[in-house]
Amino acid sequence: MSLRRFLVPPGALEAGRELELPPQEAAHARKVLRLRPGQEVWLLDGRGRVARAELLEVGRRRVAARVEEVDTPSPPRPRLVLCPGLLKPAAMDLLAQKLTELQVDELRPFLAARSVAKAAGARLERWRRLAVQALKQCGAARPPELAAPAPLTEILAAAPSSGLRLVLYEKEGARTLASLLAAAPQPDEIWALIGPEGGLEPAEVARAREAGFAICGLPGAVLRAETASLALAAVVRFSRDWNQT
Amino acid sequence: MSLRRFLVPPGALEAGRELELPPQEAAHARKVLRLRPGQEVWLLDGRGRVARAELLEVGRRRVAARVEEVDTPSPPRPRLVLCPGLLKPAAMDLLAQKLTELQVDELRPFLAARSVAKAAGARLERWRRLAVQALKQCGAARPPELAAPAPLTEILAAAPSSGLRLVLYEKEGARTLASLLAAAPQPDEIWALIGPEGGLEPAEVARAREAGFAICGLPGAVLRAETASLALAAVVRFSRDWNQT
Repeated sequence: MSLRRFLVPPGALEAGRELELPPQEAAHARKVLRLRPGQEVWLLDGRGRVARAELLEVGRRRVAARVEEVDTPSPPRPRLVLCPGLLKPAAMDLLAQKLTELQVDELRPFLAARSVAKAAGARLERWRRLAVQALKQCGAARPPELAAPAPLTEILAAAPSSGLRLVLYEKEGARTLASLLAAAPQPDEIWALIGPEGGLEPAEVARAREAGFAICGLPGAVLRAETASLALAAVVRFSRDWNQT
Repeated sequence: MSLRRFLVPPGALEAGRELELPPQEAAHARKVLRLRPGQEVWLLDGRGRVARAELLEVGRRRVAARVEEVDTPSPPRPRLVLCPGLLKPAAMDLLAQKLTELQVDELRPFLAARSVAKAAGARLERWRRLAVQALKQCGAARPPELAAPAPLTEILAAAPSSGLRLVLYEKEGARTLASLLAAAPQPDEIWALIGPEGGLEPAEVARAREAGFAICGLPGAVLRAETASLALAAVVRFSRDWNQT
């Protein structure tokens, strides 16, 4: 039951332990879902642990559960770090939610030359909250790590040269994302840079190339910035059975 | 300039012709974009034709342009028909926009057993308007054809057996979308069925299978219904260079 997932504080999940759901989660269990003692629920700690639990008590004062079995699912491979130019609030909100479902490991926006949004508009707490809500919906074990918007230089320096580093650039007509991924047999980690609403400036693309990033494009239409991020994450996660090859 | 695209009525685009922009488009060109005579703009007829044009006059009463060059870009291959269970309004709105960017050819929602939204909630006119707005943003030549929600039986009967027909089913653990696409070397057409918010019922999956649809899944997390549709469209469009193989 996808709706019977509840968030508990980190450290709370140990098999056999009895715990109380935090107030907001407890109210949701009792008033919205109308759950009853004896029913099975799933608990998430938002840090990678998920547990099956049984409700012991569903009351006004407390909703308590006993942890039955704890699991720490492996994150999917390859590790995916997505670095979009900082987008307008609604688009960043959409990314926080959807990139959680698509199991992006890190979301590191950067201050692109054409970013309309300002660094002060970085609403880290809001993005974290949206990501955690998405987690409860989709059942992934952990939300993306969220970083405050950083200058491009920092992102370029942080990406390890051992992984696949790429820039999705709408003006790149020759090399496609598909051909780049096909040529990279099994990267452990992918860092992907994507422009803001107005696209990347040629100077930014040049700096990324100098830093060792490969430039590639998506053939066909020009996607909006947030759609490009979602498409890239979907292609990385689902276009190949990475674990099986 | 991505923002200098304007929609004109079907039939209006012929090279050398002078035309007036429709009132709403004219107001946008003059008041928001503050364009001037002599500037280049792009015109779309929403039916597959796009044209480069030059502004001749930008006035309160009329904004006129001369069509310079008309193009009818080929739609991308394979043809993609997406059939999601009818979703709640906000999710359908998102699909109308994003599936236009991802150049889905047809969007044919169906009345799934677990569809929370009702057929009466099908807001075809609204979806068309959102799709056309997305068209102006992304520069694709045509929006998806939008069909009113139909019973599953109709969808199953309409899908041609010559194409690749698939069901994205979150409970399918063995066969992945990637493996299915890899085994279908070059389909002309793909029809994809995707469940509503609560997922498909086993009986619906069985009926699709009997009708010749292949069942596949996306490994890893359970995506929300609208995210699964976006992911599928992205994987079909960008995971392989279809035209080049």
